[in-house]
Amino acid sequence: MVEAGKLYKIVALSGSLREASTNTAALRYVQELAPKDRIASIEILTYKDVPIYDGDVEANGIPDTVKAIGEKIAEADGVYISTPEYNFSISAALKNIIDWLSRLQSAPLKDKPVAIMSVSAGPSGGLRAQYDLRKILLYLRPHVMIAPEVSIPANYLKFDKDGKLNDESTLKSIETQVKAFPGWIDFVKKGLA
Amino acid sequence: MVEAGKLYKIVALSGSLREASTNTAALRYVQELAPKDRIASIEILTYKDVPIYDGDVEANGIPDTVKAIGEKIAEADGVYISTPEYNFSISAALKNIIDWLSRLQSAPLKDKPVAIMSVSAGPSGGLRAQYDLRKILLYLRPHVMIAPEVSIPANYLKFDKDGKLNDESTLKSIETQVKAFPGWIDFVKKGLA
Amino acid sequence: MVEAGKLYKIVALSGSLREASTNTAALRYVQELAPKDRIASIEILTYKDVPIYDGDVEANGIPDTVKAIGEKIAEADGVYISTPEYNFSISAALKNIIDWLSRLQSAPLKDKPVAIMSVSAGPSGGLRAQYDLRKILLYLRPHVMIAPEVSIPANYLKFDKDGKLNDESTLKSIETQVKAFPGWIDFVKKGLA
Amino acid sequence: MVEAGKLYKIVALSGSLREASTNTAALRYVQELAPKDRIASIEILTYKDVPIYDGDVEANGIPDTVKAIGEKIAEADGVYISTPEYNFSISAALKNIIDWLSRLQSAPLKDKPVAIMSVSAGPSGGLRAQYDLRKILLYLRPHVMIAPEVSIPANYLKFDKDGKLNDESTLKSIETQVKAFPGWIDFVKKGLA
Repeated sequence: MVEAGKLYKIVALSGSLREASTNTAALRYVQELAPKDRIASIEILTYKDVPIYDGDVEANGIPDTVKAIGEKIAEADGVYISTPEYNFSISAALKNIIDWLSRLQSAPLKDKPVAIMSVSAGPSGGLRAQYDLRKILLYLRPHVMIAPEVSIPANYLKFDKDGKLNDESTLKSIETQVKAFPGWIDFVKKGLA
Repeated sequence: MVEAGKLYKIVALSGSLREASTNTAALRYVQELAPKDRIASIEILTYKDVPIYDGDVEANGIPDTVKAIGEKIAEADGVYISTPEYNFSISAALKNIIDWLSRLQSAPLKDKPVAIMSVSAGPSGGLRAQYDLRKILLYLRPHVMIAPEVSIPANYLKFDKDGKLNDESTLKSIETQVKAFPGWIDFVKKGLA
Repeated sequence: MVEAGKLYKIVALSGSLREASTNTAALRYVQELAPKDRIASIEILTYKDVPIYDGDVEANGIPDTVKAIGEKIAEADGVYISTPEYNFSISAALKNIIDWLSRLQSAPLKDKPVAIMSVSAGPSGGLRAQYDLRKILLYLRPHVMIAPEVSIPANYLKFDKDGKLNDESTLKSIETQVKAFPGWIDFVKKGLA
Repeated sequence: MVEAGKLYKIVALSGSLREASTNTAALRYVQELAPKDRIASIEILTYKDVPIYDGDVEANGIPDTVKAIGEKIAEADGVYISTPEYNFSISAALKNIIDWLSRLQSAPLKDKPVAIMSVSAGPSGGLRAQYDLRKILLYLRPHVMIAPEVSIPANYLKFDKDGKLNDESTLKSIETQVKAFPGWIDFVKKGLA
């Protein structure tokens, strides 16, 4: 049974590893704009030290960071992913953590509610990457929120050097999405109950 | 001017880092089945030690292995790429080397003739990954050979533990593609002349 | 509340208009193999006479066949779609009925449980078309069943001229999917309740 | 041999059938901004009366309009295609003419130089449709120009009711592309010579 007014615990993955990443900055706005009466916390997970997936590395054991991220995802009520667009698709870093997560027997993303967004240079704001991400995630069987869609053309919006975002309509689109996510989590939890 | 009978020098990238990779094994068949009167050599490049792309790493300089691969590609007449299918797309390893190569000012893949193939478990043999690879490469502007298409369902074809491939029709499809590649290189070179 | 043991009413769309279509034949196997204790009926809808979508035609009114199909979908508990693969994507016929349905104010596909499959010549059985279909449907916001995936390489399986399918593993894959669909409909209905 | 200064004859397909189509309007700007010293003519082909592809219709003969378009394409030096984005992909109308063209034994698009663009509502300007179009065309083996890419967000640019386009940067992007196309045709012709 889904309790009325349950507060959800979210974990987030930024597809860009850079300290000053606009994707990570956008996730901090997701944290800030989240509805406090529905979302208890949004923890941005880090995975900088995960090696590139290689079957021979896996043969010696799945890295501890991957296992730790798998556990964090398993315990969370939902996952937020923000991806940049590198060469018309998602970043190697994001593909890599997904490839590793797909090797965990525990299948932490299976049936998990997921919200995705993209931040990228250029007017499309990473739209080309978002559909690849949806296809990639399909294999792992999470429930990816259908709408609303958020794509942020980073150049245009002048994130300042502290990662501040000043564009009202972009802030609004982030807020609209993060406000919709608890409803999507409710939907999935009730569906699976 | 494209010289009649010119022998081409090819470099190859395997999207799987594993020692016993069936993609790398398939590239060895490409080497073996290549027309000796048109192709002088096919060198399989290794890039195991390249770190995951991260803008902060790049700020300290592009890794030497990436530069070295960029130079090998720049000097080659063509590039062969074989990709596995992980989570319905190309491997993180292959995406990573492509993301890094896209950061080289020298743009080694620009206008370069490229042939692609895929080897993967499951009946589709990596078909889902091949179109992502085509879209990803588009950004770097190589000339990717249109046909014939090669996709190899690895499980079904029982590569043995030494990477031996015993299926006649698969060997034939590899041979047909590698025999077509010098003609594609001719096409690109004449077109650019 | 979702009643225990509710019998679902399904409508189906075949992406091929041909009388002897293997996609339509496959949908007849879906009918035959459906679990009778969960699915009351699967009606294959026809839409041969729908004109190609054109904004000027729409200005004179949405065709009655489109409205009728919209109503059938609205009343159904779920929709089954089987698509061929023409030129690496879904058929124009299927794209057309979807484009028309997207013009209905009633949005009949919104929140509707959908199952998809593909039948096509060639070893991939229409896999290249299935992900386009998923992306296309995303805009209309149905809930498309994630797994199991069914793709049938028509040539290989020798549908006979009466549309008979003799391949055990293909029949099994169809049966497995249609048996999973009522559970997916339960999931969506409970989620939306 | 490719003659110096050869004037090319282009045919164009608009993916929208509507009289006041912004895609067709954009193709008229392609005509207007074409370099007169390299392009003799750009004829926008119409195909409103082509029925939806159906194997049973084909059994009675390929429609004359399809054959006529096939001949126009065969005789042309290049093809320009502008597609709208309906439901995140190309229009049914455009998919349909492509599906029919793929049935012609003469394979008029094989080895043909092609340029693509998109015009669509929303900020991405049809980007989601362009990569589907590239994948779809792959099957027919034309040589699709790699860059520059043109996508026009129609809403934002306020095409007026006579189809007038007033945005300088959009006009510039169209001009840049159509000026690049003769060079791409040169490339393909020299390559094939």
